[in-house]
Formats: sequence, structure tokens, C-alpha cells
Amino acid sequence: MSALKGIRVLDFSRVLAGPYSTMILSDLGAEVIKVERMKKGDLSRDSVPFVNGQSAYFISVNRGKKSITLNLKEPEGQDVAARLADRSDIVVENFRPGVMDRLGLGAETLRKRNPRLIYASVTGFGQTGPYAQRPAYDLILQSMGGLVSITGERGGEPVRAGYSIGDLAASVWASVGMLAALYEREQSGMGQRLDLSMLDAQVAFCENAIARYFATGKTPEPLGSRHPLSAPFQVFSTADGHIAVAIVQDEEWGRFCRELRLKDLGKDERFLARSDRHHNRDALETALTELFRTRSTEEWLDVLTAIEIPCGPVNTIDKVVADPQVRHRKMVVEREQAGIGDYPFVNSPLRLDRTPGRVERGAPGLGEHTESVLEELLGMGREEIAALRERGIV
Amino acid sequence: MSALKGIRVLDFSRVLAGPYSTMILSDLGAEVIKVERMKKGDLSRDSVPFVNGQSAYFISVNRGKKSITLNLKEPEGQDVAARLADRSDIVVENFRPGVMDRLGLGAETLRKRNPRLIYASVTGFGQTGPYAQRPAYDLILQSMGGLVSITGERGGEPVRAGYSIGDLAASVWASVGMLAALYEREQSGMGQRLDLSMLDAQVAFCENAIARYFATGKTPEPLGSRHPLSAPFQVFSTADGHIAVAIVQDEEWGRFCRELRLKDLGKDERFLARSDRHHNRDALETALTELFRTRSTEEWLDVLTAIEIPCGPVNTIDKVVADPQVRHRKMVVEREQAGIGDYPFVNSPLRLDRTPGRVERGAPGLGEHTESVLEELLGMGREEIAALRERGIV
Repeated sequence: MSALKGIRVLDFSRVLAGPYSTMILSDLGAEVIKVERMKKGDLSRDSVPFVNGQSAYFISVNRGKKSITLNLKEPEGQDVAARLADRSDIVVENFRPGVMDRLGLGAETLRKRNPRLIYASVTGFGQTGPYAQRPAYDLILQSMGGLVSITGERGGEPVRAGYSIGDLAASVWASVGMLAALYEREQSGMGQRLDLSMLDAQVAFCENAIARYFATGKTPEPLGSRHPLSAPFQVFSTADGHIAVAIVQDEEWGRFCRELRLKDLGKDERFLARSDRHHNRDALETALTELFRTRSTEEWLDVLTAIEIPCGPVNTIDKVVADPQVRHRKMVVEREQAGIGDYPFVNSPLRLDRTPGRVERGAPGLGEHTESVLEELLGMGREEIAALRERGIV
Repeated sequence: MSALKGIRVLDFSRVLAGPYSTMILSDLGAEVIKVERMKKGDLSRDSVPFVNGQSAYFISVNRGKKSITLNLKEPEGQDVAARLADRSDIVVENFRPGVMDRLGLGAETLRKRNPRLIYASVTGFGQTGPYAQRPAYDLILQSMGGLVSITGERGGEPVRAGYSIGDLAASVWASVGMLAALYEREQSGMGQRLDLSMLDAQVAFCENAIARYFATGKTPEPLGSRHPLSAPFQVFSTADGHIAVAIVQDEEWGRFCRELRLKDLGKDERFLARSDRHHNRDALETALTELFRTRSTEEWLDVLTAIEIPCGPVNTIDKVVADPQVRHRKMVVEREQAGIGDYPFVNSPLRLDRTPGRVERGAPGLGEHTESVLEELLGMGREEIAALRERGIV
């Protein structure tokens, strides 16, 4: 059983923001047909590192999809694409605004042919506005959207969030938009256009920083590992590493001091209430920094977990995939990847009890499904396809 | 027109991961009924900073919702909650596993009464596994999920991403899951249970770091503002600030060197191909660090934008909300907030052309809709409600 059984997605998108979004749909059971450039395919097929000649980057976000090659520079290729869109529920693209129009594959054209079509564009800045035509990558959006300005050590260099949240935020938001449109289509019978901007998605995620700015007039700054509103809520050094500790409620703070027999700290009026701990957090940090250096990470985790103080290790990626909870939740699964064999994929986090998200199979070879898709969806014969191939259309 | 017109969400969730998720649904037109504790309400109503006595944190993520108070410790209050769930499409909760069961409001119970109900639980570690009962906050998930280990300056202190992506990632993923379930219900007529773990959501976002780890055996490390696979793709200091520059494709690098007349750099064989620039990025960074210090940020933005090199300023939050593109996209909108007046809200990024996401109205006062909801949904009379109020149930 899958949630999106019978839903077909024609996916013109490249690299990350678009493909991660259609990966989500594919994991939910949609048929995703990835339309790739002739010969080279998706730019991310070139991305290091490689496993048996295949890009780990590409494989990771394109598992479960079909791949066809199509020469969109030629009218004949454009025609094939439009006819495939006629038989699809969703089109996804992340070219700069206007590119799909010039190919005769714009939203207006395809929706006139297929009024039920949901047409999703995922771009750096959206379809409209002064920056609409600017090129964009993850870092640009993390920077322009405000995240870089609030990430990093106090007084330190600007740093980016370590995963590509400029892309990923837009991807998940785009999936929300497409699914909302899909549900709405069940009521109205009509598709619609989604104009998803990576910058808009960043601004949406900055809501709390923006709310604080408007409320106080103060521009939020990077705080290292500290939380802007709660304390202690940060990473401390231990005798042998680091530990993340997050105490928000006064009751948690009371329990922490009581159970660890920190009598002076527990009585200190500067730290009794949440707002006091926030205002006096420099003093609080000084006191706790000394404390946490006295034991190893493992010891602290045992002690704090036993008294239900929210805490956790700062896991490196090797530790993440080996973590007992991550393993229990089966967040890494093996699937056959052609040319490699068993290959580890990060699973879908969508645990729906009847129709869970899942990794169905590995990533496609370039154009692996060109023939089967043209045969099944457009009723083309083998000779017709061979002729297209000869003319460099597929 | 709204995508989720007629959909009712009964929302037991508190603080951020749950409420941000139901905010997304509310912005799409769902009726969200927020069930709050008697007297105090959502913990985030206490969160600084305050505007005219109201928490900016709370207002930001609870705009557009209705609020009812309900005493869930009393059987009578539990009964009211269950009857409201009978008339709802979606229940959302973010208590620790087992809490809703003990209140008689668990997924099994409510779905037996209302088989069309979609029941979404958003928790730190999910409903199952060795950590299921552990408390969790954003920082814990950013740390345990791997993000902190790949964020920050090379060799520096661990830092968190500046917005609460531990919560927000889970929120948007939860919305994806609920909408997929809603669409699927149109086919099957049946609801289902979503078990969304914040840790799973972090692992899902670490897919590229995990893919690199499995492909190379090397544990990814923090890289400051650098991209793990492309160069130059980082923030540089300028004469008066910072600029983010992202060059991925060889053609872009060629254009950059040609247009800026960087003859030596353009000919340098260490930097010609993408993989070369990646491998020799220390040398590349040294060369470009000198270059970018020679002009102001504004000058660089003009020069690089003119030659279509992806770049952008490192905007602080005050700059983000004043940015021409952000303003053009109306990512901040004003709505009436009772007790304050016109108040700025971060808008929904879901630009669907027929049913766009939008901020309908401000956030509710505690229990503002208790009476109207009980009257309209449960057909209670004023006297019955007054009696419940007297007994401390609502």
C-alpha cells in the first residue's frame, strides 16, 4: 500500500531542491519519471564521491525514480515532453523562470492541455520580483535568508548550516504544496501552479528570529550552540568530548540541581526562573562549564538520562548511523543498486501505519526507462523509438 | 479559496514542532482548534519577548488558529476532547508516547470511534525504540542527528543552526505526512496514524553527509561556510563585510575569471575542473580571499550579479525583512492581533495560484473559542458550557 499510488510525476528538476522533493513523493509511492539531458543527464551524476563510477549524491536523492533522456532543445523532444505531461498528475521543474516557457513547456501551455495538472516550479527566488532571474545555490539562500547571520560562534566567522537546508527546506515545502494541491484537486477537479521560492522558504524558517526582531528591534546574532530564549540550552565540553543539554522549564532546572546535589546553584536566585536564567546566562554558563568538565560524556548521559534531563551526545555521522534508536527506526535501509549491489539508503521518516514512506529500489541509470515509458505512456512502437533515438531526440 | 477548506484539525500540541506543523495547515485553510491547558495554556505563551504582554513566539506560530481550554486530567474533559476528535479530520499531538493513551485519547481509541481520523504524533524519537520515552528539544536533535557535528568553523566549537531546524524539519515533514494521508483517505475512506520522529527527520536531512560517509568511510566535519563538494562555494570577507559566492559549474568558473580578467587564475590548472577546484580548495581559497578583500560587498554584488555569478549578501534579520525581493514576495504581512493592533507575521511560502497559503488572522487568546467551538461542534447550550466552566472542565 502506498499513499500516492497511481500518481505520476514528470520531473524536469536537477541537482537537489527539486529532486529531493520528488524523492519524497516517490517514497510515498508516486511514479516519478525523471527527464534528463541527453548524454550527461542530471548535473549531480558528476558529483563526487563515486561508488563504482556512480555518484553517491545522485543515487541518494534519485532512488526509486525512472529516468528518461529527452532532447528538449528540439521541437520533437518538446512534443514528447508535453505529451508525457498530458498523462501526468504533477510536473516539477527548477529551471530559471521563463526557461520552460521558451521550451513550450510552461505552466500555462501544459495546463491548457491538461487542466488537472499540478505544475510546481522550485526556484531560488520565485517566478516574480527583482531577483527572479538570479542564479542561486544553497549557500546564497542560507546567506540572503538570514540563517548564516544567526549561525556560528559569537564574534566568529559566518558559517553555513552543515546540510543544504537552503535546498532541503524548499524541497519539503514544495512537497507540502504539491500534496495540498493534490488534495484540493480531489474537490475541484482542477490542478494549479505552485511557485516555490527557496528564499521564501528560508524566511518562513526564520519566523522566530523575525518575530524577536520585530518585538525588540534588536537584530539576532549568532549564539554558538546557545538557544536564543532558554538557558541552559547548549553544548558543553565534558572531560572527553561534548554533551548537549536543554533545560527549559523551571521544574527541570529544580530537578537538575536537586538530583545532582548542586545546593548553591539550586538556591541561586539569578537562576530560579526561566527568564532569570535567560538574563543571567553568562554567569550560568560559567558555573556549568566547570561542572560538565568533571565527567566524561558517557557518564553525564547516564546521570542526566536517569533523572530525565533532556540531553544527548554530539554525534558525528558515523555515530548517527550506528545509533541504537536510528537503527531501531530503520532510518538506513539497503536496496539493490544496479552495478553496485546492496547499497545503503537513508529512509523516509514518514511512518504512516497503512501507507508508510519507503525506499522502493535504487536509482536509475541514465535513460534506463526511456523505452518502457514511451511504450507504456505514449503507445510508441519499438521502431518509432529507434527512429527518435537516431534523430537524437531521446 | 483555500486548499484545505472544510478540514478540521484538533491540535493538542505545544511549543514548536507540532504548532508549526498545524500553522502550515491553518495557512492552507484548515480550521485548527488548539486545545490548551487550563489557566496557563501553551508553554510558549510564557516565552520572551512579549509585545503588550503577549509572547511574540506564541503569536508567530499560532496565528489563524482557534483556542479552547480543556482539563484533560478529568474524565469529563477527556470525553469532550474525544467528541471533538469524532468531528475532526486530523488530530495532532506531541506528548511523550503513552500520555495520550493514558488520557483515553490514544490513536487506537480515537480511530475506533472515527475511522476516518488521521492521528499525527510528533515526538523527539518516535513512538518506538530505546529512546522513545526520552525528553527532547531542538538542540538535542540537532546534536544527536548529526547536524551540529558538521556545522561550525573548522576546528572550532560545536554550534547549532541558528533557527530551530530540529523542530522545523519535523514540522514540515509532519505536514507532508498528514497531507499524504489526507489525499490517501480520499481513495480509501480510511484515516491512519503518523508516527513522526524529530530524530528521523534530522537523519533524513543528513542524507548527503551520510551518503558521503558510506561512499568514502570518512566522517564529515564542519567546514565553516564551505560546501563539502564544490569550490569556490563559501562566504568571503570583503572590504566592509561579507559576501556569499557559489560557483559550481566549470563554465561559471571560466566566466568568473574571464570577466574579472583574472588571467593567471583562469589558466591555473589546479582550478580548471570542478573536481580539481574541490581537491585544491585550500589554495583556491587563499587566492580568492585576497581578491575579495579589495572591494566592498556592494561593489562585488554589482560586479558578480552583472556577470551572473551566483552570489548574495550575508543578510542580518533586519536586512532580510527589508530586502526588495522579500518585500516583493510579501513574505511579511500585517494582520490585526487583538490587544496589539497591526502586527507583522511571516507569510506562508506556499504560492499556489488558486489556493495560496496565507495568514488569515492573528493568534487566539487563551480559550477565546471555547464557547463557540463547543456550541457549534457539540451542540452544547450556554448553560451546559457554564456548568462545565464551573466544574473546572473548560
